Amino acid sequence: MFSLKALVFDTFGTIVDWRGSIIAEGLQWGEAKKIHIDWAKFADRWRAGYSPSMNKVRTGELPWTKLDDLHRMTLDHLLPEFGIEGLAAEEKDHWNRVWHRLKPWPDSVAGLARLKSKYTIAPLSNGNIALLTDMAKYSGLPWDAILGAELVRHYKPDREVYLSAPDFLGVKASEVMMVAAHLGDLKAAQECGLRTAFLYRPNEYGPGARADQAKAGDFDILATNAVDLARQLGA
Amino acid sequence: MFSLKALVFDTFGTIVDWRGSIIAEGLQWGEAKKIHIDWAKFADRWRAGYSPSMNKVRTGELPWTKLDDLHRMTLDHLLPEFGIEGLAAEEKDHWNRVWHRLKPWPDSVAGLARLKSKYTIAPLSNGNIALLTDMAKYSGLPWDAILGAELVRHYKPDREVYLSAPDFLGVKASEVMMVAAHLGDLKAAQECGLRTAFLYRPNEYGPGARADQAKAGDFDILATNAVDLARQLGA
Repeated sequence: MFSLKALVFDTFGTIVDWRGSIIAEGLQWGEAKKIHIDWAKFADRWRAGYSPSMNKVRTGELPWTKLDDLHRMTLDHLLPEFGIEGLAAEEKDHWNRVWHRLKPWPDSVAGLARLKSKYTIAPLSNGNIALLTDMAKYSGLPWDAILGAELVRHYKPDREVYLSAPDFLGVKASEVMMVAAHLGDLKAAQECGLRTAFLYRPNEYGPGARADQAKAGDFDILATNAVDLARQLGA
Repeated sequence: MFSLKALVFDTFGTIVDWRGSIIAEGLQWGEAKKIHIDWAKFADRWRAGYSPSMNKVRTGELPWTKLDDLHRMTLDHLLPEFGIEGLAAEEKDHWNRVWHRLKPWPDSVAGLARLKSKYTIAPLSNGNIALLTDMAKYSGLPWDAILGAELVRHYKPDREVYLSAPDFLGVKASEVMMVAAHLGDLKAAQECGLRTAFLYRPNEYGPGARADQAKAGDFDILATNAVDLARQLGA
């Protein structure tokens, strides 16, 4: 087995269920506000703005912009699209911060706690530091440190983000494992010399929707969930 | 009472007892290696290199250099000064990382745990991220995030460090409280608009040595230890 000191994690989809969380909060909020829309579609449309908005930063069309602000730009288009008008600024802010309140998959906290007993664990996410810190408090994610795109002002899959993890943690790239449910994220990490673990999250995009799958040999580890990953790493 | 969302902490001397920890490890290591020197003096001399080495970075004489590397530069002068010769590179590395293994004051973990239940808590230290992350794991410091000089490549008391805390945590400067046992640190934080709490650590520099003291009105809170701080903040 290789020498491993730290694991860094994609969060949206890998550790937390962004889609289920947004739908649940949307239904509850909509009930109170008498807003009855297709919240699954709303969540999917919001997430669909994610890559294009980050790419504007990655290509230099936008200066460095935190993910909270990119989420807000997408939300500001989305609300009128769904016929939601007249929200107070605080209501929009609160709703935008639903991304700070995403809930973990059922195995995430238990798996992370086991991994933490043997390794340093941190998110390595495109979420900004406030988002990730709030999410950890809200959902009990036991990170040792909060790493991510904001610290180097680059979004994944830019190399700077992956290379920042061994640099901040004071270890070699080959001693860090990137854990994600997305092939593109892992391939980019692999090219930077990090170890990789694929975590299968079949329901990220909803029941019946296609989720990434990996095959043996593509990455160092294929795991069915975070507890399985801990077991395979002897934690 | 003011509105407060986060507390950020000086670590060396405020949360952990650097001097006692280095002396204890020095004695133990010296016993094994048959090196009998005045470990208190060794610890004090090592710490005496701290401000001058950081000032070289602050003034631009040195490019950005992590605290681990500044500690190592001081150590490389200190070992021959104390007649310690012929250490293997790994031994020097291990001994340099004693700063990653500093032990908390008896009240630190309990106080932080209480504060964490009500506020976001993070170090805001000149220690590099690896040092602070290792220290937290080693000593059970329950930080929500790891903040510090390395993230902005400036050492305290540069303003950039203090201003980075509200920026990374997504709150106003006045919603963040800097906690430290050192007047200079708190005054610099105050000038940046942060709230301040003085934590009295009479034994930081050893029994009988002078430690900073604050008087009523200098800062928002004067506390005798971390548990007292939690009590005063209703946590």
